[in-house]
Amino acid sequence: MYYLNNTVKELKIAYIGGGSRGWAWNLMSDLALEPDLSGTVYLYDINYESAEQNAIIGNDISYHYPEYNNFEYIAAKTPEEALKDADFVVISILPGTFDEMESDVHTPEKYGIYQAVGDTVGLGGLVRALRTLPIFEDYARMIKELCPKAWVINYTNPMTVCTDILYKTFPEIRAVGCCHEVFGTQLVLADALNEIAGIKVYNYDDIKVDVTGINHFTWLTAATYKNIDVFPIYREFCEKYKDCGHGREKSKQNWMNRYFKCDQRVKIDLFLRYGYIAAAGDRHLAEFCPASWYMKDPETVDRWGFSLTPVSWRRDRAKELAARGARMVKREERFNISSSGELGVAQMKALLGLKDLVTNVNIPNRGQIPNLPLGAVVETNAYFTSGSVTPMFAGNMPASILGLTERIVVNQQMIVEAVQKKNLSIAFEAFINDPQNTLDMLTSRKLFDEMLNNTKAYLSVYGL
Amino acid sequence: MYYLNNTVKELKIAYIGGGSRGWAWNLMSDLALEPDLSGTVYLYDINYESAEQNAIIGNDISYHYPEYNNFEYIAAKTPEEALKDADFVVISILPGTFDEMESDVHTPEKYGIYQAVGDTVGLGGLVRALRTLPIFEDYARMIKELCPKAWVINYTNPMTVCTDILYKTFPEIRAVGCCHEVFGTQLVLADALNEIAGIKVYNYDDIKVDVTGINHFTWLTAATYKNIDVFPIYREFCEKYKDCGHGREKSKQNWMNRYFKCDQRVKIDLFLRYGYIAAAGDRHLAEFCPASWYMKDPETVDRWGFSLTPVSWRRDRAKELAARGARMVKREERFNISSSGELGVAQMKALLGLKDLVTNVNIPNRGQIPNLPLGAVVETNAYFTSGSVTPMFAGNMPASILGLTERIVVNQQMIVEAVQKKNLSIAFEAFINDPQNTLDMLTSRKLFDEMLNNTKAYLSVYGL
Amino acid sequence: MYYLNNTVKELKIAYIGGGSRGWAWNLMSDLALEPDLSGTVYLYDINYESAEQNAIIGNDISYHYPEYNNFEYIAAKTPEEALKDADFVVISILPGTFDEMESDVHTPEKYGIYQAVGDTVGLGGLVRALRTLPIFEDYARMIKELCPKAWVINYTNPMTVCTDILYKTFPEIRAVGCCHEVFGTQLVLADALNEIAGIKVYNYDDIKVDVTGINHFTWLTAATYKNIDVFPIYREFCEKYKDCGHGREKSKQNWMNRYFKCDQRVKIDLFLRYGYIAAAGDRHLAEFCPASWYMKDPETVDRWGFSLTPVSWRRDRAKELAARGARMVKREERFNISSSGELGVAQMKALLGLKDLVTNVNIPNRGQIPNLPLGAVVETNAYFTSGSVTPMFAGNMPASILGLTERIVVNQQMIVEAVQKKNLSIAFEAFINDPQNTLDMLTSRKLFDEMLNNTKAYLSVYGL
Amino acid sequence: MYYLNNTVKELKIAYIGGGSRGWAWNLMSDLALEPDLSGTVYLYDINYESAEQNAIIGNDISYHYPEYNNFEYIAAKTPEEALKDADFVVISILPGTFDEMESDVHTPEKYGIYQAVGDTVGLGGLVRALRTLPIFEDYARMIKELCPKAWVINYTNPMTVCTDILYKTFPEIRAVGCCHEVFGTQLVLADALNEIAGIKVYNYDDIKVDVTGINHFTWLTAATYKNIDVFPIYREFCEKYKDCGHGREKSKQNWMNRYFKCDQRVKIDLFLRYGYIAAAGDRHLAEFCPASWYMKDPETVDRWGFSLTPVSWRRDRAKELAARGARMVKREERFNISSSGELGVAQMKALLGLKDLVTNVNIPNRGQIPNLPLGAVVETNAYFTSGSVTPMFAGNMPASILGLTERIVVNQQMIVEAVQKKNLSIAFEAFINDPQNTLDMLTSRKLFDEMLNNTKAYLSVYGL
Repeated sequence: MYYLNNTVKELKIAYIGGGSRGWAWNLMSDLALEPDLSGTVYLYDINYESAEQNAIIGNDISYHYPEYNNFEYIAAKTPEEALKDADFVVISILPGTFDEMESDVHTPEKYGIYQAVGDTVGLGGLVRALRTLPIFEDYARMIKELCPKAWVINYTNPMTVCTDILYKTFPEIRAVGCCHEVFGTQLVLADALNEIAGIKVYNYDDIKVDVTGINHFTWLTAATYKNIDVFPIYREFCEKYKDCGHGREKSKQNWMNRYFKCDQRVKIDLFLRYGYIAAAGDRHLAEFCPASWYMKDPETVDRWGFSLTPVSWRRDRAKELAARGARMVKREERFNISSSGELGVAQMKALLGLKDLVTNVNIPNRGQIPNLPLGAVVETNAYFTSGSVTPMFAGNMPASILGLTERIVVNQQMIVEAVQKKNLSIAFEAFINDPQNTLDMLTSRKLFDEMLNNTKAYLSVYGL
Repeated sequence: MYYLNNTVKELKIAYIGGGSRGWAWNLMSDLALEPDLSGTVYLYDINYESAEQNAIIGNDISYHYPEYNNFEYIAAKTPEEALKDADFVVISILPGTFDEMESDVHTPEKYGIYQAVGDTVGLGGLVRALRTLPIFEDYARMIKELCPKAWVINYTNPMTVCTDILYKTFPEIRAVGCCHEVFGTQLVLADALNEIAGIKVYNYDDIKVDVTGINHFTWLTAATYKNIDVFPIYREFCEKYKDCGHGREKSKQNWMNRYFKCDQRVKIDLFLRYGYIAAAGDRHLAEFCPASWYMKDPETVDRWGFSLTPVSWRRDRAKELAARGARMVKREERFNISSSGELGVAQMKALLGLKDLVTNVNIPNRGQIPNLPLGAVVETNAYFTSGSVTPMFAGNMPASILGLTERIVVNQQMIVEAVQKKNLSIAFEAFINDPQNTLDMLTSRKLFDEMLNNTKAYLSVYGL
Repeated sequence: MYYLNNTVKELKIAYIGGGSRGWAWNLMSDLALEPDLSGTVYLYDINYESAEQNAIIGNDISYHYPEYNNFEYIAAKTPEEALKDADFVVISILPGTFDEMESDVHTPEKYGIYQAVGDTVGLGGLVRALRTLPIFEDYARMIKELCPKAWVINYTNPMTVCTDILYKTFPEIRAVGCCHEVFGTQLVLADALNEIAGIKVYNYDDIKVDVTGINHFTWLTAATYKNIDVFPIYREFCEKYKDCGHGREKSKQNWMNRYFKCDQRVKIDLFLRYGYIAAAGDRHLAEFCPASWYMKDPETVDRWGFSLTPVSWRRDRAKELAARGARMVKREERFNISSSGELGVAQMKALLGLKDLVTNVNIPNRGQIPNLPLGAVVETNAYFTSGSVTPMFAGNMPASILGLTERIVVNQQMIVEAVQKKNLSIAFEAFINDPQNTLDMLTSRKLFDEMLNNTKAYLSVYGL
Repeated sequence: MYYLNNTVKELKIAYIGGGSRGWAWNLMSDLALEPDLSGTVYLYDINYESAEQNAIIGNDISYHYPEYNNFEYIAAKTPEEALKDADFVVISILPGTFDEMESDVHTPEKYGIYQAVGDTVGLGGLVRALRTLPIFEDYARMIKELCPKAWVINYTNPMTVCTDILYKTFPEIRAVGCCHEVFGTQLVLADALNEIAGIKVYNYDDIKVDVTGINHFTWLTAATYKNIDVFPIYREFCEKYKDCGHGREKSKQNWMNRYFKCDQRVKIDLFLRYGYIAAAGDRHLAEFCPASWYMKDPETVDRWGFSLTPVSWRRDRAKELAARGARMVKREERFNISSSGELGVAQMKALLGLKDLVTNVNIPNRGQIPNLPLGAVVETNAYFTSGSVTPMFAGNMPASILGLTERIVVNQQMIVEAVQKKNLSIAFEAFINDPQNTLDMLTSRKLFDEMLNNTKAYLSVYGL
């Protein structure tokens, strides 16, 4: 890597999970659009073939778009090849297969526990964490060895605990967990400004927000648009849509949204309860609240206007993307170049000193939220600049939302501890303490054992 | 008040709620047994007659027991008469009548919400707080005016928020909230030492405990008896009794216990969940946990071996005590002198510099539990000595129990704020945020309005 | 005020101390250069004539430079006229006259205590604070009354305590204290990069620094330039120049610098002591350290390569500026338009939502430096955006520099308390506790009384 | 060890530095007087002969006083023999010889730096720490190995950093640092109560004090005697004696006091400066303040009514005690049994669960003083009971005394770090940062090197 005027050349980016067809394509597109950066992206995937496909697709970008030839793509045979001396490491992996995810999401249904996503918190999120975090421990150790100064950008869920264990394993790691859910909420605020106050927002980024909380249960404690306080406007918006929901029509437009339906009713209900803006999709938000509120049963979920995404849908979606990948490899379909809305590349530029950036990010709490535990990974705004990510001081989380949040945070800490110690008793302690878990200890144990058994192919580190 | 050798003479004690037949009699008995203190007790009660009765009973102590003639009792006509230049103020009042308590405890049952006690947290505790705290604000102001240096000992529930609002109203007040629930847990530990390890404990006080938490949801994070760690022994005890409960026989012995039944199964379950000893009766503990755990319905309660105390029982009990009081006034029955087990008088001695005392107490958090909000009233051990009550440093509450506790603490802070501002919207915010509340906002509003309406005779300060 | 596309029209700026010939001219120049803002500047000064002069000069800008006609200038007869509904308030005042400053700076010399500036800390800074802070209390009250939502930009020294008392008097005030000393240090770092590593920095702003501390005793705990860690380079620079100093030639160039001489030897010595970069001029830095280090006597000062600025110089300088002002009023001299390097106007733009800004600023510590007292005004980086200034989380100040800093911070807190309570005993407590004060209590009292007496014309609020 | 009724039998106490003639004799006397404890004391000393002498003296106690035969004394050949399975470990050692102490105390005098004691802080305390702490690291490791559950009572200076490094080396150690200086201050307060208010205190322990700070720079923030606030009385006392000092006659009574003279003038001056009671002897207190205050030169010291204890006096004193030891071994002199005033044995009883104790003690700051750094060893009151030492919550140290204290604390942290890393550069950083050090860096380096060279026989771990 070296600087030439205000550009950086010969960057080495390691992409772990480089065979992915969502995140990897987004990054490839964003990198192509970034004239100030150039270099090589090493794609590593446990499925080498898919990484190889992506390398072909990536290298074909300059074939389809000769003006975008700044990056070369290489499918790495080993993670070491990808990581060695990397300047940036991007991690977006799927731990296990859809079969394991099937168990995570749907096994609890037999016990009357429903999950909208099942990859973040709740019982499914917990078991997914048990599978995923040991892999992150390995990567943390490799990064320490092979590229200790690299910036690590994690997109993998469960975001909070994945990022946490990177730091627990290699405390000097320079890692951030990135998530776009807050941006989605800025769009809702733009809608509110438009519908309630007749203010047309051309750039959702101009809605400035104070962010606090944890990933997928993030809260906006302030929002302004050109000196206008958005809160009173949003309150009116919430009162207007609290029963019917907002955006129903939009979300019916295509079959995909059937499983990602979100009428903002959970978000609105939480605002009316607490006076702060919950900044994630309803499917995520509901999983952080007591089960009785929004997810007692499928009827309740339906009444609240969101949906429980079935794993079957994910399987179908994956097949479709695989087919598309195959077509692109054969040049039957052209890779689509457009800004993904993700900030990974903008973050890289900022960290290289080319253009400062303020955005929300997941990093350990060093005191930016004084009343959440130190060391827990939290999501706040942060300032990305040459060589550093510095959190904004978010201040104490407001009392009313602290109670719900703290219950999750302590569970996440127990999960990380369980993985570090490879101790399933601690994991079970977290399992029975999860707000979504309405079962007694005996039944909890039965479900826990069943979920572990279903996914044991990926849990050998625990001695299963 | 003056010192003579190591005794104190001419103490003035103001007893607010001085017509009470439980706490007042206990104090009268304990004072009689304390040779180092003498003086006058002013009994004030909104029911003057009952205070007068107690004055007669108190002054008759020396008739029945000539050796115990250290205190004179006066029924005060006004609170000002009682408080003026008092050295100590004891507060144990019942806000409203049993009719209001009937509504607090039983109205939510119509909506499927059950309460074992209903005077501390939960929906009943909240409405009780709305009635009680304005009275405490008045007393805080009178104390500031009439006896600002007095030590105030509060026995009234809801303990935490009553004590809190005393400090919020008059920050220099020297008040403590006292509760005997922890002592009861020391007895359970003594049983465990005896049954599991064959160790006979003669003095439950010799079981030294580290106390942290909030009133009625207090936790022991360490317990030793003569250098023996009680925790492993208690774990064995819990494993042994987790299904059948402990003390069932004892609790069946009389009809009274039918409504105070406690097989320790909640306490045991919480230990097995979290690894710390919950130090209150099961009826209290259950009210702090998610409703689905122990109080989903009466059958669940029964299965967990405790009971929902009906207000009808309290009415009967009150009548019985009233009759007993009447008999004592007529000298048909002798007042019974025996140590009550309460520490109020021992605390007075300590504060006067006669004998230091370490015990658990409820005072505002100045940092003794760093990870609970500053200013919130918490329960920890404290050192009572000449002129001061200093909390022990309890340290951070362990993560696993912090989650549940913080949810309650933030609610208590909102309740106190609601009362200070006489703002029922904030009270409703707390109402919907209560872990016992499984209703949606609309139904919550209905229940809230109904409960307020039932008790509105005592809620005029809120403009009802 | 209203928005038109991405510009703001009809801004009202109140300038307190609007007759000043330094800060006011800077602001007028920067405003002229800012095409996105327009409106009116109200200049208020206790010397009305000087405000009137500046208004003439300001309005003449469009005469000399027709392209810069965005702001109108009005000399306000009362502070109320200036403040009423202002969008921004700028404060740069001189409390008292040069006679008082003469006493502040030079009276202690009779007792062997020397001061390089005497306006920030030390004995002179303290007495200056006693004069200045009551004026700031008045302004805080007027702002609360007349423009509570205005952003207040303070340039007045002693910066820390002036800003502090604004918040103490009107806690909701939106005030920041601004100072350019850190920028000067970035220039030194640019020199180091150039001289030691051959790296030419074109924009000192590209040297990204982590800022922590208090005004004029600010520290850089990290500095990077395009991913290059500046610290090892600066260490080499310090080793090279520790004896001879850096920039001696430059500073000899003109007579003015004779009194502002700064060979960076104090800055270098502090780096070699503590390993962190002190980010203010040596004359300021020396005043925060024990007297024995750099200011034992004039010879020591000279040896360290800086100078004690005499007040006589300030008198001369003021006369010169006054003459220049008079010439400009008569259009004998043209007002010079050039960017001042101050960030006031950039901050205004950011707060209006036009362009985000990250820079260092003085605001109360809400936890951005956890190991300095909460509420004390500290200097860290902050993010200026639409409607908010949010401090970066600076983290704990490193242990080694915490000791020196804390001694000053506690003194500043005592000074503010002394002013709030109009209590000269507390002021004296701070006086004897100042690190520059090497006298015993009796002699301290004599000097204190003498300094107060010399300046008593401006101390009547204390009953003098 | 086992319990019999309320006594403990077969205790094993390891005494490191068991040949000492001060602390060891005190402990032997106190143990003899304690009927509830019995067992064996293993005396280990690098000078085996002196340990053997003490064993003879100890075992002879029952010869001279047949009623006191509860403890047997054994001179241990190795520390391992003493420590193996010990219940208590007492450490009171002298690192190096008087030659090293001679250098610590008197070498800085050549450079104009005077020290009254030279064993705690300042330049002498620092070099003494460099000698002592590596020995404590060794003992911490042995204790971890041989008696991890033992309670460790440290009497060795520099107390704070010795205790600190025990915890840094073996974080689970159960160690306390004990010091009697606070008791001495209670005697001064008793004098004040008597002389000013005519109140005769029979038991200095009845003066209840709130203690905060660090060893030998401890402060009383409250003091009451039977509900009487001692502060106003002490203020009168201070005003009365501020010039002439108190106790001058007493301190002249014998030659020994010539070198321990203390007229309380420093203590009084600090009270008049800060309003809090400094609770250590003046010789210690002066060493924590800027040199210019009380120790600029021997004349200043004399004027403040205390003395600089020369090491020659310590040599003479040691010889005298050695001679006395020899006489006792030969039964020419009888060992004197009387309560020493030290609390070591009372602490043991409390920790064994026999009798609770509240007293001041040095342990790491876990938050008991929130505004001092976590982990730093601080001195506050603590509650000794069965199996635990729990600090009282002391609260934030008052601002005025925080500044001086923090400067020392950060230096102590650097010293501990220097020892842990065996890094003399860090030690030098602390050396130049010491408030007693008025030299510039070059001269400081010369003195530092000289002091290290003088004591290098004991500094080989640093590679000297």
